[in-house]
Amino acid sequence: MEFDLIQRLRKMLPAHPDVPVGPGDDAAVLRWADLNADCVVTTDLLSDHVDFELSQVDPERVGRKALAVNLSDLAAMAAVPVAAVISLVLPRSGGTELARRFYDGLVPLAREFNTAIAGGDTNAWDGPFAVSITAIGKTTRHGSLRRNGARAGDVICVTGAFGGSILGHQFDFTPRVSEALLLNEKYELHAGIDCSDGLAADLAHICRESGCGAIVDATAVPIAEAAHEMANQEGDTRSPLQHAFGDGEDFELILAVPPEVASRLVAHNPLEIPITPIGHFSSENTLLLKQLDGKTTPLEIRGWEHDF
Amino acid sequence: MEFDLIQRLRKMLPAHPDVPVGPGDDAAVLRWADLNADCVVTTDLLSDHVDFELSQVDPERVGRKALAVNLSDLAAMAAVPVAAVISLVLPRSGGTELARRFYDGLVPLAREFNTAIAGGDTNAWDGPFAVSITAIGKTTRHGSLRRNGARAGDVICVTGAFGGSILGHQFDFTPRVSEALLLNEKYELHAGIDCSDGLAADLAHICRESGCGAIVDATAVPIAEAAHEMANQEGDTRSPLQHAFGDGEDFELILAVPPEVASRLVAHNPLEIPITPIGHFSSENTLLLKQLDGKTTPLEIRGWEHDF
Repeated sequence: MEFDLIQRLRKMLPAHPDVPVGPGDDAAVLRWADLNADCVVTTDLLSDHVDFELSQVDPERVGRKALAVNLSDLAAMAAVPVAAVISLVLPRSGGTELARRFYDGLVPLAREFNTAIAGGDTNAWDGPFAVSITAIGKTTRHGSLRRNGARAGDVICVTGAFGGSILGHQFDFTPRVSEALLLNEKYELHAGIDCSDGLAADLAHICRESGCGAIVDATAVPIAEAAHEMANQEGDTRSPLQHAFGDGEDFELILAVPPEVASRLVAHNPLEIPITPIGHFSSENTLLLKQLDGKTTPLEIRGWEHDF
Repeated sequence: MEFDLIQRLRKMLPAHPDVPVGPGDDAAVLRWADLNADCVVTTDLLSDHVDFELSQVDPERVGRKALAVNLSDLAAMAAVPVAAVISLVLPRSGGTELARRFYDGLVPLAREFNTAIAGGDTNAWDGPFAVSITAIGKTTRHGSLRRNGARAGDVICVTGAFGGSILGHQFDFTPRVSEALLLNEKYELHAGIDCSDGLAADLAHICRESGCGAIVDATAVPIAEAAHEMANQEGDTRSPLQHAFGDGEDFELILAVPPEVASRLVAHNPLEIPITPIGHFSSENTLLLKQLDGKTTPLEIRGWEHDF
């Protein structure tokens, strides 16, 4: 069966010019004849009952998301996607159909982002479905975008809007690859991350790696329609802003931009999506939320770590 | 906890000169300033109750093996290991201790093969333990070693001995990285594979990809001591040779070598381990076993595919 799956994938995905050896050998070979390009590597593992519920979501959407989260990480590094390798563990019952539908969802996104499926490993077991994808990209001559370069005074700029991704955006988001590459090419950026753990938590990641703090304007945060929907649901005790800070899986970019660059960027936004300044990095080692009345309170971090 | 694990790994593994960005950012960055080096990528997923039984084997040995199987794939491509990214799903109970012991077994092998741990993803769930590793290597100026280059008349050369790996070798083997690099540098090799599915099955992989067949001399196959032990076990109905052909997980190299090159190679074996000619590739589309009396019979393939 594994052989059949490889044959099917070979048919679904045309040969990629940068991948002289794809699935079917001991390893894939990616052509790398570019002295300016370093190799950017990211990996994400998603599993049933933890990251999604196969009883509630189509395998196609899981397949799309499994690749999209990795492309979002490449975007956060300002890397051009090249290839992905995909490992699946499938339940013994229904595994073949599950694998087919998973790839039916994944392959169109791979094509859209010119990402070769260079290989993988497919297993069956008595446990639930899990998928591990490693994506590989190339830096451009503008280099990679790190988490650790934010400086006090830099403006916090974000793409898109935040909150309520659980209502659908967590599966259907577009990885901000082209946006990150364009911004990294045209503007001086000091740091960047993609928002997966939550706006507050991911901002904290940048602060920790950069050795700085941040002050966010409560009124400036772009709140997604879905965050309002969530807050309006019966029994929900959180405000739309709290959803925006804590929900996670927005997969938008959070950037540290020098003030003079941020002014130009916001005035002449080159993207087809909104870009919003929501505050600035500070020299204090704290995350603060500046309220409408000018008072600041500690920014609560509700983003989560896997507990084990 | 995931953050603690990353911090611990950062301490266990010294900075790697080719990995300017390691764990802790959205992705790792591998320096790639070499026009001759293509990027070789391989991935393997191992899971409890399928590839090992945590009730019977120390997590340290699983950690070592999980990296070793990937290094073996890089060896089969004649690639120099550069880095690995590691994704774990851990059972919620005892996961922290399991992860620590897993890495205690893996890290020394990573050091031995100068392989950076460039990143990963660590999750907890209610299912069994599983690990997915993607290893990345570089080709040398001698290029990569493929499965598809064997030609009729090429000699089948193998390193080491085969069979009975379940008695321990399956965990404690040495990936044939330095051997593959040396052979690929000094000799003309037409094709290569590492033996994971079994000598007969992996030989069949080369034949299928190369569009040829093979004839193996029954008396020439180097049989591991463990294969004899297995055959002597009460209730075991297979011969040592059958174990050598079918057991798998030997992680030795199977090579297609032009006859004149093979003569030199075997006469002046540059390796510290045996290298043995066991037959030759043929223009027929069959795998045959040549018996002591000169008669040939079809070579039974007992290597396995994952069934789902």
